[in-house]
Amino acid sequence: MRAGDALPVELPDAVREAVLAPLVDHHCHGVRRDDLTRALFETLITEADLPAPPGTTHFDTPAGLAVRRWCAPLLGLDPHVPPAVYLARRAELGAAEVNRRLLREAGIVAFLVDTGINGSCLLSAAEMGRLGGAAADEIVRTEQVEQAVAASTASGVSYISDLNDNLAAKAARAVGFTSVVAHPHGLDFDPARPSRGAVIAAANRRLADPQDRLADPVLLRHLLWAVVDVARERSLPLQFHTGYGAPGLDPHRADPTLMTGFIRATQPIGVPLVLMHCHPFHRQAAHLATVFPHVYVDVGLVPAHTAAGAAAVVGELLELVPFHKQLFGSDGHGVAETCYLGALYYRRGLAGALAVRLAAGEWSVPDAARVAHMIGSGNARRIYHL
Amino acid sequence: MRAGDALPVELPDAVREAVLAPLVDHHCHGVRRDDLTRALFETLITEADLPAPPGTTHFDTPAGLAVRRWCAPLLGLDPHVPPAVYLARRAELGAAEVNRRLLREAGIVAFLVDTGINGSCLLSAAEMGRLGGAAADEIVRTEQVEQAVAASTASGVSYISDLNDNLAAKAARAVGFTSVVAHPHGLDFDPARPSRGAVIAAANRRLADPQDRLADPVLLRHLLWAVVDVARERSLPLQFHTGYGAPGLDPHRADPTLMTGFIRATQPIGVPLVLMHCHPFHRQAAHLATVFPHVYVDVGLVPAHTAAGAAAVVGELLELVPFHKQLFGSDGHGVAETCYLGALYYRRGLAGALAVRLAAGEWSVPDAARVAHMIGSGNARRIYHL
Amino acid sequence: MRAGDALPVELPDAVREAVLAPLVDHHCHGVRRDDLTRALFETLITEADLPAPPGTTHFDTPAGLAVRRWCAPLLGLDPHVPPAVYLARRAELGAAEVNRRLLREAGIVAFLVDTGINGSCLLSAAEMGRLGGAAADEIVRTEQVEQAVAASTASGVSYISDLNDNLAAKAARAVGFTSVVAHPHGLDFDPARPSRGAVIAAANRRLADPQDRLADPVLLRHLLWAVVDVARERSLPLQFHTGYGAPGLDPHRADPTLMTGFIRATQPIGVPLVLMHCHPFHRQAAHLATVFPHVYVDVGLVPAHTAAGAAAVVGELLELVPFHKQLFGSDGHGVAETCYLGALYYRRGLAGALAVRLAAGEWSVPDAARVAHMIGSGNARRIYHL
Repeated sequence: MRAGDALPVELPDAVREAVLAPLVDHHCHGVRRDDLTRALFETLITEADLPAPPGTTHFDTPAGLAVRRWCAPLLGLDPHVPPAVYLARRAELGAAEVNRRLLREAGIVAFLVDTGINGSCLLSAAEMGRLGGAAADEIVRTEQVEQAVAASTASGVSYISDLNDNLAAKAARAVGFTSVVAHPHGLDFDPARPSRGAVIAAANRRLADPQDRLADPVLLRHLLWAVVDVARERSLPLQFHTGYGAPGLDPHRADPTLMTGFIRATQPIGVPLVLMHCHPFHRQAAHLATVFPHVYVDVGLVPAHTAAGAAAVVGELLELVPFHKQLFGSDGHGVAETCYLGALYYRRGLAGALAVRLAAGEWSVPDAARVAHMIGSGNARRIYHL
Repeated sequence: MRAGDALPVELPDAVREAVLAPLVDHHCHGVRRDDLTRALFETLITEADLPAPPGTTHFDTPAGLAVRRWCAPLLGLDPHVPPAVYLARRAELGAAEVNRRLLREAGIVAFLVDTGINGSCLLSAAEMGRLGGAAADEIVRTEQVEQAVAASTASGVSYISDLNDNLAAKAARAVGFTSVVAHPHGLDFDPARPSRGAVIAAANRRLADPQDRLADPVLLRHLLWAVVDVARERSLPLQFHTGYGAPGLDPHRADPTLMTGFIRATQPIGVPLVLMHCHPFHRQAAHLATVFPHVYVDVGLVPAHTAAGAAAVVGELLELVPFHKQLFGSDGHGVAETCYLGALYYRRGLAGALAVRLAAGEWSVPDAARVAHMIGSGNARRIYHL
Repeated sequence: MRAGDALPVELPDAVREAVLAPLVDHHCHGVRRDDLTRALFETLITEADLPAPPGTTHFDTPAGLAVRRWCAPLLGLDPHVPPAVYLARRAELGAAEVNRRLLREAGIVAFLVDTGINGSCLLSAAEMGRLGGAAADEIVRTEQVEQAVAASTASGVSYISDLNDNLAAKAARAVGFTSVVAHPHGLDFDPARPSRGAVIAAANRRLADPQDRLADPVLLRHLLWAVVDVARERSLPLQFHTGYGAPGLDPHRADPTLMTGFIRATQPIGVPLVLMHCHPFHRQAAHLATVFPHVYVDVGLVPAHTAAGAAAVVGELLELVPFHKQLFGSDGHGVAETCYLGALYYRRGLAGALAVRLAAGEWSVPDAARVAHMIGSGNARRIYHL
């Protein structure tokens, strides 16, 4: 069953086709190429990085029930099979076959893959595309570029030029940048471009211990501004992880409105800024996407994680954000189930919202179909120049 | 078609009549009296102050689709006509006729007009009333009074007395005050009344450049407390713009709970404080309206801007706020479409919420009708002494 | 009519039985044993501590309509009777009989009673259980223990040991602790355990005026860490009041994500932290419960206060929080109506959410029943060792 065959409502043909049309997944990660233990599989269907408490399981989550409901049939099982049955069948088929089935059935026409958390155990962008029967492009994780520069450059002065050169070199082979400044620092960073002197001094300190994850606020800001410069030259968007995320994050510092100053400062430059996930700040992000012409939003991994409750979140984004500012991105990572469920619940949520609007006589059929195409692929094609 | 004829649900007669009864629009602005270019019209149906990105249009928003759906028939067009057709017909009829139709069909019994963003191109309060077939009263923008005093007074000492005099003079012809302290400063202001000495010193600094928009935190606080004093004498409410708004605003500083200290300090004084728009902090505002006897709320421009999704927001306010604390205000501004859609989507959202409660056996018909009357006009009549 | 007999939807038998099964109310307070004036009754069905404005009544709230709708029949009245009729009948029956009916009909199998706001006018935990036909256990209010120690100990040094001894003594007869640090201070407290020297110095200052409510940030943190130590030894959970609450609270400082640092610091210790009420930050709390293995959540008093709108809030918790991390707690206090309505609206909201998931083919019947049992009583039995 294709993701789109599981729409929860009747829709006019044109709208149904628009919802089922192949999606551009503008932000996902590679999935594991190897067979997984139950413990590892469980942590990959949640944002937690530890096992569930004794006597409980991460399968007892909205996403866990969704895996059993929607992914099981793709492995030839009945819906709702117990976790152990699902995982046994998964092992029997092998990771390659499971990945192939789930990625292909997600109905994706292009994967834009954040390669920042790479490793030989994860599929590359090209492999994601090949298995999923889709095109694939790379999104450059800016912190990864910085890490490589910090590990190889000679001085604070060369740090600046090497960072520029490396960002430009990466940009030549990629369709966008992504930043995780929310995680080591928070989005409440000083929006001003730091002075060259301050950057050199901070870089010299950083070179004393270049293996550490970048945490210096001056260098984080410098990195963002260096990326903005390169992105402007290349007409590439810059993505930000915001809101819902891993336990290392301080959630109250991941509210995207905390970076309103930076958004305002970059507005004349015109580089598209994409606020990702955002939950529970997606209505705050909606405000930004509404008033700033270069701000875009998605709800990322949230549909897959809220699963049976995804319609509410998808609906809350549709409530205010201009339709030319919304994107589909699964933020799938680790296991192909997250990519598949991301596409499925995005489509189910959107289908439900469109059906309500059509039934209430609010939107015309052509408008509903057009909005579905814009969010599902058109906006991504435009800003990523696909 | 009157706004009320477009209810999305069946309701018992008494409830239907209550929802359709004329509304007091306790906060709106004047609309343009002149014919508008497409570019200008587009910025007036959004909170953005810039055009949509190349290849996109502000018509591709919930409000844009709503204009085509609901306003087009009032201009004699089919629902869902393309933007160009809508605007051509609008130009053909002329602004005066369009304003007359839309304001009249909004079903408003009284417009309380914030005259703070005046200019000869906007209708006055009296004109809004005349075109809309309604009464009209003035809400005084406190910052505008201050600006005039700063431009004309002689010294920091006279600034204090002139401000008091001017506020009192304005109050004599108005039904309330409004503050936009959220915009130049944020709602995280020091709640304490500043000392006379501090005010005089700050005023003397301000008089050096009186054309600037007021930004000094001491004078902003002084202005609020001066208004509270006058409002208490005259039994007038004080409105605050909070939450959703223009790009100049820092959204995370527009959360109304940031001014809880001020709310607590003014509680014994009893001046009604009205928190407006509030989205996405309307549940935070609900908390304040529930626990403080002098706090009132509306969702202002949000129903018109969320349009087909307005029911969720209207429902979230109804979820916790005492029914005697909620108000209807369209916050319409610039084009009469915003006033009309504000009334229409408020009514549609409320009708839906009441229908659910009646169908579930939660509320009686008389209670549902009574609540609709309270929110639609009764509460405003009480606190604005209409 | 039992709470469960008033489900708003049809459900398969197994799910219906699970929703109607007796609940563990993991956090409530005693209710008044005496007959109440209308003025007092009104303030006990709201979080406000003052009368409604002149000409209005706290009965015109979602909770007020719910009292008339659902509690009236338990007193032998028609639904929707006027407040005066309800209160007259309440007085006629007497508080003891009213409490007996409402507590018993709530369908609770165990009350875990926060005895922190005690007084002879409130029922004790044992009395709550006896009237409600349920077991009863005590939740220790940590600030109350501290107050008693501050009033009796000799010095800053003995303060530390006396606090430990008293907490341990209380723990021996209780099933959990509760903290109201959100109220005097806010949840943005320094997460670090304070030094012994700093505690002794602060305690010596406190002993100069021990009747005051604890407000010193060093002692508040010390209290939390002292409780964590005792709770670990005894395997007891620690509850936090967060979000929606009384007017003394600064709402923006009651966001549970502000204590993420403390949550992270206590994670290796393993003491379950229960975030209560949370509204309007329940989606923020959901994030914490998802990523930290020792964090649990409820929406406490919110279902009773949102009443006819409770389904949205219950649904928003179900949207992301692992099912083994959600708890039912009425936070009932003052009048037994709040306990009864808390149970009723929790069940109605959950029933609605489950019906939607079953109708959409999302969840199986056994899973839906299992989730209802987990949230309604299973999770509480596990973490409170009932």
